[in-house]
Amino acid sequence: MTASTPEADGARRRPGGRTARIRAQVLAAVRAELGERGFDGLTMEGVAARAEVHRATVYRRWGDVGGLLADVLDAAGDDDWRPPDTASLEGDLTALNQEIQDGMAARPPIMAALIAASFRSEKAAEAQRRLWEDRYARCEIVVDRAVRRGELPPGTDARRLLVAATAPMYHHLVLLRTPHDPDLPRDAARTAALAAAAGAFADRRR
Amino acid sequence: MTASTPEADGARRRPGGRTARIRAQVLAAVRAELGERGFDGLTMEGVAARAEVHRATVYRRWGDVGGLLADVLDAAGDDDWRPPDTASLEGDLTALNQEIQDGMAARPPIMAALIAASFRSEKAAEAQRRLWEDRYARCEIVVDRAVRRGELPPGTDARRLLVAATAPMYHHLVLLRTPHDPDLPRDAARTAALAAAAGAFADRRR
Repeated sequence: MTASTPEADGARRRPGGRTARIRAQVLAAVRAELGERGFDGLTMEGVAARAEVHRATVYRRWGDVGGLLADVLDAAGDDDWRPPDTASLEGDLTALNQEIQDGMAARPPIMAALIAASFRSEKAAEAQRRLWEDRYARCEIVVDRAVRRGELPPGTDARRLLVAATAPMYHHLVLLRTPHDPDLPRDAARTAALAAAAGAFADRRR
Repeated sequence: MTASTPEADGARRRPGGRTARIRAQVLAAVRAELGERGFDGLTMEGVAARAEVHRATVYRRWGDVGGLLADVLDAAGDDDWRPPDTASLEGDLTALNQEIQDGMAARPPIMAALIAASFRSEKAAEAQRRLWEDRYARCEIVVDRAVRRGELPPGTDARRLLVAATAPMYHHLVLLRTPHDPDLPRDAARTAALAAAAGAFADRRR
């Protein structure tokens, strides 16, 4: 569930493309500026200068700071990330939650800054939603595997289970800003796995 | 878990105090401006004008916009709110989640604007954390009652249970911005209640 590194961007996979190269330079500059200065310090001029790309190019292609942030988020989803496979539901959810915790604790705090920026720019908010939607969709295989192993009943609502497992992470890390708790990933995973085993997500509508 | 209405502020309880009256006028103006214009439209001048209070008074007493927001949040916690008592754990948690959903859906969107503002101002963020801390502390009685009714084992970790029940609300409403789902309050409550019955919060550290 973490944002991609610059190396995961399009430029490396299409090494010959000038357009892709410029995009990679600009998005790396956005991440760097965001990490150092936060949303309030992020400007089209600062990004262009840092990326060593013409300001006119940045304006033409990204429009405004919201457009830059949205493209950083879209690029973060343009990778081959797959959820961990630990051979148990609780293990998979714990590993997933650990990635979220690590991502939020990373320095510079790009993931945290992008979430904060989603409250400032509607374009960034939409891109953040697209990224989460994509990540949750990719994670549904965690629930499919648990059903196939017989850990969960068929028909378990994967999305509700995944939100139940991960929501306490985001609540603590993004909203409550609780001090670091190394047990949080496993506690939240275990809670969701116990609820799932008790049939909490077995039928969508009762 | 909702923000208080202007009527719940100190002014009504200390009707004779000029200081309290000014505070009530200013905080009502902050809420109104925030609801109409959001954080970006909130200024010390706009609040002073709307409240019909001297700008110098507003600057002296609240310092800056962050100070105003922090005081709105502190005032929201200065009430006699208690969690609903429906005679069952799932019922109590559902009613609590319903209040959160209603608060986030209210127009003008004061609660949503205050949460968004907590990403802009450290003072507002600290006040938001104090408000949540106070609300969660007041909600612990929900778990105490369930233990006394025999619904939950003694030693159940009230805070973790309450966060598990409410986190999906905040995740959907604040971060994922999912379309309105009338079943969400009950689904999240039921999930937490099932996990609690399965012992998810029975022992703090394993």
